Amino acid sequence: MAPTPWISFTTDYGLADGFVAACHGVLARLTPTTRVIDVTHLVPPGDVRRGAAVLAQTVPYLPAAVHLAVVDPGVGTARRAIALAAGDGLLVGPDNGLLLDAAAALGGVRAAVELTNRDWLGADVSATFHGRDIFAPVAARLALGAPLADAGPAVEPSTLVRLPVPLVRPEADGFTAEVLTVDHFGNVQLAASGSLLEPLPRSLRVERQPAVRVHTFGDVAPGELLVHVDSTGQVAVAVNGGRAADLLGVTPGDRLRVTAG
Amino acid sequence: MAPTPWISFTTDYGLADGFVAACHGVLARLTPTTRVIDVTHLVPPGDVRRGAAVLAQTVPYLPAAVHLAVVDPGVGTARRAIALAAGDGLLVGPDNGLLLDAAAALGGVRAAVELTNRDWLGADVSATFHGRDIFAPVAARLALGAPLADAGPAVEPSTLVRLPVPLVRPEADGFTAEVLTVDHFGNVQLAASGSLLEPLPRSLRVERQPAVRVHTFGDVAPGELLVHVDSTGQVAVAVNGGRAADLLGVTPGDRLRVTAG
Amino acid sequence: MAPTPWISFTTDYGLADGFVAACHGVLARLTPTTRVIDVTHLVPPGDVRRGAAVLAQTVPYLPAAVHLAVVDPGVGTARRAIALAAGDGLLVGPDNGLLLDAAAALGGVRAAVELTNRDWLGADVSATFHGRDIFAPVAARLALGAPLADAGPAVEPSTLVRLPVPLVRPEADGFTAEVLTVDHFGNVQLAASGSLLEPLPRSLRVERQPAVRVHTFGDVAPGELLVHVDSTGQVAVAVNGGRAADLLGVTPGDRLRVTAG
Repeated sequence: MAPTPWISFTTDYGLADGFVAACHGVLARLTPTTRVIDVTHLVPPGDVRRGAAVLAQTVPYLPAAVHLAVVDPGVGTARRAIALAAGDGLLVGPDNGLLLDAAAALGGVRAAVELTNRDWLGADVSATFHGRDIFAPVAARLALGAPLADAGPAVEPSTLVRLPVPLVRPEADGFTAEVLTVDHFGNVQLAASGSLLEPLPRSLRVERQPAVRVHTFGDVAPGELLVHVDSTGQVAVAVNGGRAADLLGVTPGDRLRVTAG
Repeated sequence: MAPTPWISFTTDYGLADGFVAACHGVLARLTPTTRVIDVTHLVPPGDVRRGAAVLAQTVPYLPAAVHLAVVDPGVGTARRAIALAAGDGLLVGPDNGLLLDAAAALGGVRAAVELTNRDWLGADVSATFHGRDIFAPVAARLALGAPLADAGPAVEPSTLVRLPVPLVRPEADGFTAEVLTVDHFGNVQLAASGSLLEPLPRSLRVERQPAVRVHTFGDVAPGELLVHVDSTGQVAVAVNGGRAADLLGVTPGDRLRVTAG
Repeated sequence: MAPTPWISFTTDYGLADGFVAACHGVLARLTPTTRVIDVTHLVPPGDVRRGAAVLAQTVPYLPAAVHLAVVDPGVGTARRAIALAAGDGLLVGPDNGLLLDAAAALGGVRAAVELTNRDWLGADVSATFHGRDIFAPVAARLALGAPLADAGPAVEPSTLVRLPVPLVRPEADGFTAEVLTVDHFGNVQLAASGSLLEPLPRSLRVERQPAVRVHTFGDVAPGELLVHVDSTGQVAVAVNGGRAADLLGVTPGDRLRVTAG
């Protein structure tokens, strides 16, 4: 494939150690003209679901890129290391479900390989830092235009590890949906697509709390609960000038019932 | 105007979501050769004053750039979206006072426009993420050299929303000034310009606490309170090896009295 | 020397102020084609040992670069500002021990100078922000290819300030070693080289707690304590899916005894 000038980079490495920089260094050595867009490195440690959600909601806005993502509690065990082709992008990371929502957002998996080609890696591969020793070197070579098939043997996409599908259940007077993410502002994003809000009236309840269906935060008074279609097209619950997650006492994986109120 | 190779980027988006990266992606797609200097994305949510102070104190050290800044609690409401020309820079963000201190630091507003040209934006503009959908696309086009006047109609600078001017009151034996910022080290920066310190002796009081007027932290013993002209030219109160904000129990907006002691 | 296209950047400045960006701006103005790899800016304030450890463990993976590092509690006092040549890199920062472990990791100090050439600096040098006013300008000029000797007079390497060597004591049935770092995941890295683990059996004790010597986290059950050679070659204590530092109640500088168990 043609070289791509961009690599995106998502991990749970945090920003206080040198882990992210070591990977940037590996990329810089192998493909110095490629530029890196850091998606986030603050995925909670080992939280594959959160990593998958952030990556999937961000890739539609990134340029064509190799998307390097490492949230990898099974590092060094038998879990596969993989690369996927999807839309105009390539994704590189562990086979634990982290990459598949992003692949779907890019247009679906076109091809998948297991990263077994040791010629692409350095002499020493540690048992615990595959971001630096496997995934970054592979991402760099793909960014340089190496064929995906050279990274290792094809993997049947149906065998890729998938995360459980979050619950969304339409009901007579609304719906129940799992909390997908809580963002920096405390906004509560539900697994429900925005279309589920269409049949509902302006006056709603989120569990027992009254809420208003509006377009943006400032459409309600400060401190009031609102329900809206967020910037990714999902239903989200927010508080104007406040933190809905704190008000509702919810975290990702919890369920919320939204009904005509 | 000539294209500028730099965009600076300041928000309250935090680093744990994909918001910053989505904006980087929009910039990378529209103006791939422009490079981005992230000023900070840890402005406390909705704290326009803090965002304005950090940006104003940083722009003098940045190269000529389009300064993209989004701390925008009024996103999606009737508040205007604006771009300003100031000195060798352009500033893009909400009309809520965020940009004006930086514009002053760059030499003052030369021109202002309201961002109403929908041709510069994508097909879908969300109600809650104008950083991605309005401000970043506009910053990219300005970085590419598009004329400011093409972004929308001129705005009379006197109509721009301004933040309240922080209190600074010279007194017989010193001055009272509002706390402008508290930095990562707990240093307390006052709204007072360094020149207010000139008439005062070496021995001072900050409220009732004894303090010494010196040049740098190590000029006093560890744990001692000092008053100095900080690296931006403002009066600041610090503790050698400690956190003055904790010792004094102050946060931005509080007032401190500095007097001959 | 030939220009180098990379600068690495390590500080305790935090990410909430404009300090890091001001330095990026100084670099961008002086050497616009150089690219910066941020190692970390979350070294705890003034923690020179932590900064030294992170930098030393990261530089082996970075491209040839000028390594700019500022953890500088003595800023503005008589401590020297220095630049070192080591391996294919140059290091710039305060003479407080911060740079020497990284210099050793790069191959040892080949030359050292004190940064006294005021022609390389701007007109105004603040008393408290030498990262912006001294170290960044010097790093930029070195990245542009200026000779190290032009930065100031040679310094005898034996006179450079050194950090205390952390304790590592081999014992009859194992070893005692100081905690060198605790990473984002709570992994406890010891000052002991991985070779100290070789003579020990699979079944170990860390202080009184049973632990297993394995290759990676997933080799033990979730919640179990393990001892392994980490990705930098040091002995480290970890918990599969947990935080060893919390389980053991240790922080850097504490000592741990690892014995056949």
